Amino acid sequence: MLPADTRRHHLSLLLQCLADTGPLSRADLARATSLTRVTVSDLVAELLADGLVAELGTKPGARPGKPATLLGLVHDAVLIVALDLSDDTVLQGALIDLHGEIVTRDAVELGSARGDAAVDLVVALVQRLVATSERPVLGVGIGTPGVVDDKGVVRQAPNLGWYELPLAEAVGARVGLPVSISNDANIAALAECTFGAGNPDGLMLVAIGHGVGGGILMDGAMLGGPLLSAGEIGHVVVEPGGAPCACGNRGCLETVLAVPHLRDRLAAVTPDAVASELEAVGTTLGAVLAPIVTTLGITDVVLYGPAELLDGPLLGAVRAAVAERSMPVVAEHLDVRMASLARDVVLTGAAAHVRFTQLGVV
Amino acid sequence: MLPADTRRHHLSLLLQCLADTGPLSRADLARATSLTRVTVSDLVAELLADGLVAELGTKPGARPGKPATLLGLVHDAVLIVALDLSDDTVLQGALIDLHGEIVTRDAVELGSARGDAAVDLVVALVQRLVATSERPVLGVGIGTPGVVDDKGVVRQAPNLGWYELPLAEAVGARVGLPVSISNDANIAALAECTFGAGNPDGLMLVAIGHGVGGGILMDGAMLGGPLLSAGEIGHVVVEPGGAPCACGNRGCLETVLAVPHLRDRLAAVTPDAVASELEAVGTTLGAVLAPIVTTLGITDVVLYGPAELLDGPLLGAVRAAVAERSMPVVAEHLDVRMASLARDVVLTGAAAHVRFTQLGVV
Repeated sequence: MLPADTRRHHLSLLLQCLADTGPLSRADLARATSLTRVTVSDLVAELLADGLVAELGTKPGARPGKPATLLGLVHDAVLIVALDLSDDTVLQGALIDLHGEIVTRDAVELGSARGDAAVDLVVALVQRLVATSERPVLGVGIGTPGVVDDKGVVRQAPNLGWYELPLAEAVGARVGLPVSISNDANIAALAECTFGAGNPDGLMLVAIGHGVGGGILMDGAMLGGPLLSAGEIGHVVVEPGGAPCACGNRGCLETVLAVPHLRDRLAAVTPDAVASELEAVGTTLGAVLAPIVTTLGITDVVLYGPAELLDGPLLGAVRAAVAERSMPVVAEHLDVRMASLARDVVLTGAAAHVRFTQLGVV
Repeated sequence: MLPADTRRHHLSLLLQCLADTGPLSRADLARATSLTRVTVSDLVAELLADGLVAELGTKPGARPGKPATLLGLVHDAVLIVALDLSDDTVLQGALIDLHGEIVTRDAVELGSARGDAAVDLVVALVQRLVATSERPVLGVGIGTPGVVDDKGVVRQAPNLGWYELPLAEAVGARVGLPVSISNDANIAALAECTFGAGNPDGLMLVAIGHGVGGGILMDGAMLGGPLLSAGEIGHVVVEPGGAPCACGNRGCLETVLAVPHLRDRLAAVTPDAVASELEAVGTTLGAVLAPIVTTLGITDVVLYGPAELLDGPLLGAVRAAVAERSMPVVAEHLDVRMASLARDVVLTGAAAHVRFTQLGVV
């Protein structure tokens, strides 16, 4: 038995060969990758069982008595189970195909369930979706708020009562499928690059809701960082000594930009002052983004959240403030816009994450 | 013949097996990696020729008549040729071992050489160093100012008169060795992580000299980005409408922090005001760094440049400003300090880059 990492690398090598070259025989694959024929046959058996590869008949020109079967990729053969745990009251789920299209939806009330009880709800929702699927399931992707490591351990997700919880392992053992777990804002950024218009070489997504989070892709990969917190723009201090924030500091960006604060702020002014309030907040966000955008040299900044608040004077002011404070060559290439995926960005991001971890493609 | 990428991956897989498990036979390596024995023998021949692997005698307990030879890694068998092109007047070179120790130095005056003439000087310096080496040369690493892509093409390095120059290919063809080219500040950050105290999961190096540049490592890799400019913190605008900058903008961080500007500023005040001038500049740098540090969640910020200017009130003010404006959990883990490598950071970075591209290890 190969180590899991090596096995996954080899599987991905075979899939990439088939994607690059078109249908090939097992012998062709062995030649192209220099893996042994035994290994190739073994891995192909797994891909056939997963439905990712299909046998396409005999290779033309093969010698009689030794027919070689051609193998091809099957893009629509499988579905992915995706869960979005970012809502405080309802756990959302869906079956999603490899193109990011939602085939079926399901959901379960979270109620007061926390800790193990919340895990039970997750497992039940996954099992229901698996049972609904008319195609083989490639894997399960889960987007959760909080801090998640690259082994699928939820280091902390206070809203769900999870601390140091090996969620991928726990769910995987009960549903018998590979499970990928990721922070909700990080996979939202991945979704924008995989299924939307985002550039995976340099994109930052800012998710604006009850809180303010974000995710970054650079050079084709989601950034994690030593604290597993890459993308967490919400707690940059913009008003030293300002309003208290849940993180323990004062004057964080979140205290100005999160949807409830933004709505409170707009409710307190006359209708003709709304645009200038939104502009002020956009300028604040732009000033925080400029050093990040210039120093990373990214080309895509996307906002995800309520369009009626964000997609107007606020977005315009972000654009102006970033342009004013960035290096000209960066400003020239930069596109600051609303996310091209208007909804379900965590669900489709969870599907993109499974696609990436199982197939090695963004 | 395998594609170069696959060949490199397989070589790195063999080296990692030997590093992880200790001495193994060719058959053991084939079993551990599931590469064919023919491929393993072929790759091992290359590693033996490079001197990276040595035969260590017969495996104990092997059947008579079929002795299996054990293979082991040889850390001190090879040297790396490293060049630092970041100085305007002298091209620096060195032979460096795999631990980052400089064995021999050499240098050549740049004079008025630009374009092809500058390439000729680079090739001559490499050839002299190769001729000096008493051990096989693993590869050539070159750190250059300017914009470099991941194929070793210098997109632009105005000081050397290079535009869209395939430098890795040009030098490689003339010296017959693999050549890695990288931006000087990016490999300075790599050096700090490979041979110094830096954390490759999240480090930013700020290089302060005639200009202000930088490099970032996240999750074990140097960041590039779509514009190949990741790390370029010098052109964040800190004083809108301030002093004109070489980039075409006004009030860039570089106009405040670059060594010549900093020295001018200190020369203009009385001796007892020097510390407060340095503090003011440190506070400005800290305010630029805070959004970057919080949003990336990095743990290491290192300054590289003249200690007499940086390592005092300026560094202290950077620390205070970053701490004040960052998320508490990030501030807690953050270490803002002078680079642990006080000199030769581009030369050793070039060696680290060769080590990384040839052996797959940071």
